[in-house]
Amino acid sequence: MSQAPNFTEVDPGLRVLMGPGPSDVSPKVLRAMAAPCIGHLDPYFLTKMDETQTMLRYLFETEHALTMPISGTGSAGMETCLVNLIEPGDKVMVCVNGVFGARMADIVERLGGELIRLDFPWGRAVAPETVLKKAKKAGPDLICVVHAETSTGAVSSLSDLSQAAGEVGALFVVDCVTSLGGMPVGIDANKVDAAYSGTQKCLSCPPGLSPVTLSSRALDKLNRRKQKVVSWYLDLTMLGSYWGAERKYHHTAPINMIFALHQALRDICTEGLETRFERHRLHHKALVAAMEGMGLSMVVPENERLPMLNTVYIPQGADDLGVRKALLNQYGIEIGGGLGDLAGKVWRVGLMGSSANRRNLTLFITALKSILEQQGVKIKPGALGAMNNIYDQ
Amino acid sequence: MSQAPNFTEVDPGLRVLMGPGPSDVSPKVLRAMAAPCIGHLDPYFLTKMDETQTMLRYLFETEHALTMPISGTGSAGMETCLVNLIEPGDKVMVCVNGVFGARMADIVERLGGELIRLDFPWGRAVAPETVLKKAKKAGPDLICVVHAETSTGAVSSLSDLSQAAGEVGALFVVDCVTSLGGMPVGIDANKVDAAYSGTQKCLSCPPGLSPVTLSSRALDKLNRRKQKVVSWYLDLTMLGSYWGAERKYHHTAPINMIFALHQALRDICTEGLETRFERHRLHHKALVAAMEGMGLSMVVPENERLPMLNTVYIPQGADDLGVRKALLNQYGIEIGGGLGDLAGKVWRVGLMGSSANRRNLTLFITALKSILEQQGVKIKPGALGAMNNIYDQ
Repeated sequence: MSQAPNFTEVDPGLRVLMGPGPSDVSPKVLRAMAAPCIGHLDPYFLTKMDETQTMLRYLFETEHALTMPISGTGSAGMETCLVNLIEPGDKVMVCVNGVFGARMADIVERLGGELIRLDFPWGRAVAPETVLKKAKKAGPDLICVVHAETSTGAVSSLSDLSQAAGEVGALFVVDCVTSLGGMPVGIDANKVDAAYSGTQKCLSCPPGLSPVTLSSRALDKLNRRKQKVVSWYLDLTMLGSYWGAERKYHHTAPINMIFALHQALRDICTEGLETRFERHRLHHKALVAAMEGMGLSMVVPENERLPMLNTVYIPQGADDLGVRKALLNQYGIEIGGGLGDLAGKVWRVGLMGSSANRRNLTLFITALKSILEQQGVKIKPGALGAMNNIYDQ
Repeated sequence: MSQAPNFTEVDPGLRVLMGPGPSDVSPKVLRAMAAPCIGHLDPYFLTKMDETQTMLRYLFETEHALTMPISGTGSAGMETCLVNLIEPGDKVMVCVNGVFGARMADIVERLGGELIRLDFPWGRAVAPETVLKKAKKAGPDLICVVHAETSTGAVSSLSDLSQAAGEVGALFVVDCVTSLGGMPVGIDANKVDAAYSGTQKCLSCPPGLSPVTLSSRALDKLNRRKQKVVSWYLDLTMLGSYWGAERKYHHTAPINMIFALHQALRDICTEGLETRFERHRLHHKALVAAMEGMGLSMVVPENERLPMLNTVYIPQGADDLGVRKALLNQYGIEIGGGLGDLAGKVWRVGLMGSSANRRNLTLFITALKSILEQQGVKIKPGALGAMNNIYDQ
């Protein structure tokens, strides 16, 4: 037998997480995650499962019975919705205005769905009138859209897109990974048939779980399937029995991750959704004021901007990687770089959940200013003043 | 918007986890999991990923480059190995001697593999001579076996089965969910092409990750695929790039779960595999001595017994559920009931990782004795004495 390796213990230090996720996790959530592990069929754990589902329904603004966390990260939630609802040959329209729409399209093809891909400019919302026009021609079984594109910072209108899906009788599938907990998703009001999210964005819980919710209309399609769901792990007919009244053993749920999510949801319930959404809007306004005060330009037009994920053009003369490294190494601040077509052109600044606060923003703007000045980038002097004007209004 | 729910915080109390998993998680592992969350592309996290892989190779007794934790529980690891290695029409022989073999067979069929199912009696090892005989006739592309059947407590011989796979040129796929970290798996010595495990058994880490390892021969088959892997989330061609030198973003890894696994693996490295295996054997012997001292009978023949999962027949007159409830409610001890054909007939007692210690065993045997006596079940008086004889030899 080989020699055992010898590494030192985990000690990451503190970061200020202002990238595209994970966001800052509060000490309370970390403490809940470190509660003693118990069995996945322990009566105490079953009550925590029920409570987690109830709080997720509040968050999704839904009464869907099938609302629960999938035992994987956000992409597992995406795959869950698609693998359960798509049978080979189904027509699936996917609206692509960034990385995550493209991921949905990739999965649809793997599942043998007939992909109808609609591309929109990156950094812009999905145009509902285009979707409706194309959908009327194609007659899709599903219309899939990303509510909040984490790769670009653009938000699309769920109410308008839902109407388009309704007109052609398609199931409406929505990626809420970045929006859930930071802005209204209104699953029931917007007649969303399947939605998924992640825990590490506006829920401010470590990554590892993906909340999903499905309408009874979606479940009807699932129950009418001719073939078994190709994924055993993500098969909602069985997962529903484990999380439902039957409590039929499927897999071992990630107990301590559920404890963490339970606490993160409790914190959201205590703050209240309206207050939380308003907080995200406030810090977003402050960030935009600071960026524009510095002379930097936002990528997304004002009325299509997400509050929790802000893309800004990298100013001329600035070294993308150098700035991000200096932020991380000198200040412990993480922000995100651009993805795909936007790589090297933009920064992505997250204001998600616990990360959205004046302390973080003040530090970030001050640090960014200083680093840009060191790099000889010309910036305007008004950033902090413009930001404080928003806060002190 | 509806009223926010109002639940109390997570406070599960302490359990003694002697069921089929999860096992007791040490305070050190819980503390590591509660380290501050950082980004999944943070340089510090990347070093922890590398170290985790190095320690997993030690544990699997392998030099396979592709060795890493999948972002899901043990069943996600099972699905990962099968979804990557099976293309529609591939002949897949699955040896079934319990629940988890049957689960593999289910997945093979979902993937369009041509299933060759070999059934063996529950509670017994898989017979290598039968496998070889049938494999020579059928010429399977893969032979799949569960090393340690958690549902029955039987171990199968990897060296003998590996030889059979080698003779017919099949890839050898092994479920090590319950064996890894508690007994030798010898991935390289046994020429295993794909293996998966879970964190909540003999690794004594909370559930949520599934360590996997694949040989270069398995990767060759993966790279020769005609079709994309049907699962995006579990596609090893992409996961390998994220965990490999390229660090290409795929999904957001469950950061804090990796921290926990890192610490659990450090604890195993400190103890050393040989010492850890010997510890599992010792407590297993003590448990068997106590059970037989009480007059209870083991389900599995002596030379086919797992050390970490012990099935015992429920004695006449005992109320299965009543005994398990009393253990949990009066003593905080969890043991498992029977699954499938063994439901209501056996108990499953886990001695996994941190749970395998004299304190737990002494408490459990004393409690079980007391509960059975209360139920009027006739038991012999020699349990504790027989157990102590083993310990004090």
